[in-house]
Amino acid sequence: MIEVQEALEIVAANSSNLSTQKLAVKKALGYVLAETIYSPIAMPPFRQSAMDGYAFIHSERHQFDIVGISQAGDHANIKLKENEAIRIFTGAYVPDSADTVIMQEHVMANENSILIAKKPEPFANIRNKGEQINIEEVVFEANTVITPAAIGFLACLGITEITVYKKPKVAILVTGNELVKPGKKLSKGKIYESNSVMLEAALQTIGINKIKIHRVKDNLKATKNALKSILEENDVVLISGGISVGDYDFVKEALLKNGVKELFYKINQKPGKPMFFGAKKDTLVFALPGNPASSLTNFYIYVFPAIRNRMGFSNTHLPKIVRKLNSSIENKTGKTLFLKALYDEKNVTILEGQSSAMLNSFAIANGLVIVPQEVENIKKGQLVTVLPID
Amino acid sequence: MIEVQEALEIVAANSSNLSTQKLAVKKALGYVLAETIYSPIAMPPFRQSAMDGYAFIHSERHQFDIVGISQAGDHANIKLKENEAIRIFTGAYVPDSADTVIMQEHVMANENSILIAKKPEPFANIRNKGEQINIEEVVFEANTVITPAAIGFLACLGITEITVYKKPKVAILVTGNELVKPGKKLSKGKIYESNSVMLEAALQTIGINKIKIHRVKDNLKATKNALKSILEENDVVLISGGISVGDYDFVKEALLKNGVKELFYKINQKPGKPMFFGAKKDTLVFALPGNPASSLTNFYIYVFPAIRNRMGFSNTHLPKIVRKLNSSIENKTGKTLFLKALYDEKNVTILEGQSSAMLNSFAIANGLVIVPQEVENIKKGQLVTVLPID
Repeated sequence: MIEVQEALEIVAANSSNLSTQKLAVKKALGYVLAETIYSPIAMPPFRQSAMDGYAFIHSERHQFDIVGISQAGDHANIKLKENEAIRIFTGAYVPDSADTVIMQEHVMANENSILIAKKPEPFANIRNKGEQINIEEVVFEANTVITPAAIGFLACLGITEITVYKKPKVAILVTGNELVKPGKKLSKGKIYESNSVMLEAALQTIGINKIKIHRVKDNLKATKNALKSILEENDVVLISGGISVGDYDFVKEALLKNGVKELFYKINQKPGKPMFFGAKKDTLVFALPGNPASSLTNFYIYVFPAIRNRMGFSNTHLPKIVRKLNSSIENKTGKTLFLKALYDEKNVTILEGQSSAMLNSFAIANGLVIVPQEVENIKKGQLVTVLPID
Repeated sequence: MIEVQEALEIVAANSSNLSTQKLAVKKALGYVLAETIYSPIAMPPFRQSAMDGYAFIHSERHQFDIVGISQAGDHANIKLKENEAIRIFTGAYVPDSADTVIMQEHVMANENSILIAKKPEPFANIRNKGEQINIEEVVFEANTVITPAAIGFLACLGITEITVYKKPKVAILVTGNELVKPGKKLSKGKIYESNSVMLEAALQTIGINKIKIHRVKDNLKATKNALKSILEENDVVLISGGISVGDYDFVKEALLKNGVKELFYKINQKPGKPMFFGAKKDTLVFALPGNPASSLTNFYIYVFPAIRNRMGFSNTHLPKIVRKLNSSIENKTGKTLFLKALYDEKNVTILEGQSSAMLNSFAIANGLVIVPQEVENIKKGQLVTVLPID
């Protein structure tokens, strides 16, 4: 049995980046860049008007003849004289001869000429070529996370394809003779199997959408055979159940017989103690506890950062925030506790129903409060660390 | 022109819940419940062992003969005598005659009998029937958001289908003759069209995945014709560009000619002033500014809460958090400012490059700082409101 901190370090040390792939920018939301991107163009690509108005050559003059028009998308390089102006619109090409744009709200205009009361500064209301970014300038460093704004910025530079870290292929293996698929009749002594859909949904919240769910009978041979191809075909394998010390838990043996190297087994925490973490080549194996709340806790604490690591994220863990505790906590277990809780901008409330078999409180929680194993008492009003899960 | 607060209220007042649909629980992540759910079973459905160990009848006795076994999934209702125990595993059926389970770590066992040194309290290590929830008890009230834990809880009660509010059908209409699709050659005076993929990605972050993108020439007839069917087929229509005061902006006229009722036009804010909000029956129309940063700002401030409202969420807006400002802010515009910023657990830094045409800063921002229109100065070290967008 190891401590939480050590378990986290072992998971991090074994969660290498996956290989990279080329991907269309419009499909890259939530991926992490595996290359530095340089701009293929200057942006703006030409001098643009920042306003709807009139372009002219700045001088002492207040009256101008209108000699042309430049709409967005046009490229008429009209050669202006000092007494001439053109009608111009936001985003439109500013002729090389013009140096200033005035907002239309600041002129008196008729069909052929404009009169300016208060002239703007020279060079006003013009976006210079390359003002936003120049050709060959760095757009994004490697390891940038692709957000909606990043997609917009790449697209506005004409970039359609980028190299990103792949997302892991993830499989979930469910064991347990006591489990019945929801929708079927529950015979005596059985319970409904809920961990697979719960873990599938948890994976979806971090952008993993292609997940294969396997089910296997609770015996060594079936488990061992099922694992063979699952280990070959996936980057991360989650196993639900069959990992506590009971005589009928075959999962660990089946893993070792398949050449999975044990990296740790059991963590000094509550809930979530009976967990096995191992690896076969680059495939990571998390054998999670069968109790639903334990399973989901360990997903957030261990699986989440491992997958983020593999996807190339720099911030792999859930963020840690600090809140004032609304009640007191006792911890006589000598274990690290992860308590389902509801936090707001200032405080955090520990929810009722912390049993590892119960999902009631997890379903309404928005955070997990960490109580370190050496802390026996936390008083009401003290600050605690919360991991947001919303 | 109206103030931000009034615009927010008008959007909220017009964003009604969509109709409901039945949906498989395993596909319901991120949806909002439209019904109260009652449990069809008691959970646990029977008295369960909470440990791997031995079940017996509590008495003064310390030694027991092992007369049977109960694995998870079994249902052998063995009738125990006072000197008898059975081997039992976590989650397994506890025979009606037994009242206590002891952890296997706390006994000395041979093949046929066990010796208990320190006996547990009576009724220890047994999860009672219905301890988690009873039959017909409320599982979730209507308007609960479906999280991974909620999916797990519903599944463990055998529930496979729930009634949720539909997600809106959303279309994006792009206008602008100056726009070239990324990947094509950029001719003079043109720029790449980036708002559609950016808005599509922003919609994906809130779970809207089926989005139709339409492109139209910058003229009244084309815009009007395109809008006819788009308005009929969608719940929310986003229009990018063509809404400022320039002579060549036909969008507003095309909307009004299609029977869209104007609810407001122009907001006293920067960036994002030239926005039109309207409705035709239950279809909402947001004509967003063409400048990318303005467009994305108004997505987060107005479109985001409208869509969340339609999906049945109670918390519709981005959360507001408070952080200490790392620099000073001047606001002589008389407008509400939304500034791209990077916040951490304590502070917030305003990013360089706040121009409405620039996405550079938006791509690395994780929040928007709100500066109310009446505030002219905020000093370094003062607290400001931040909207997290990460």
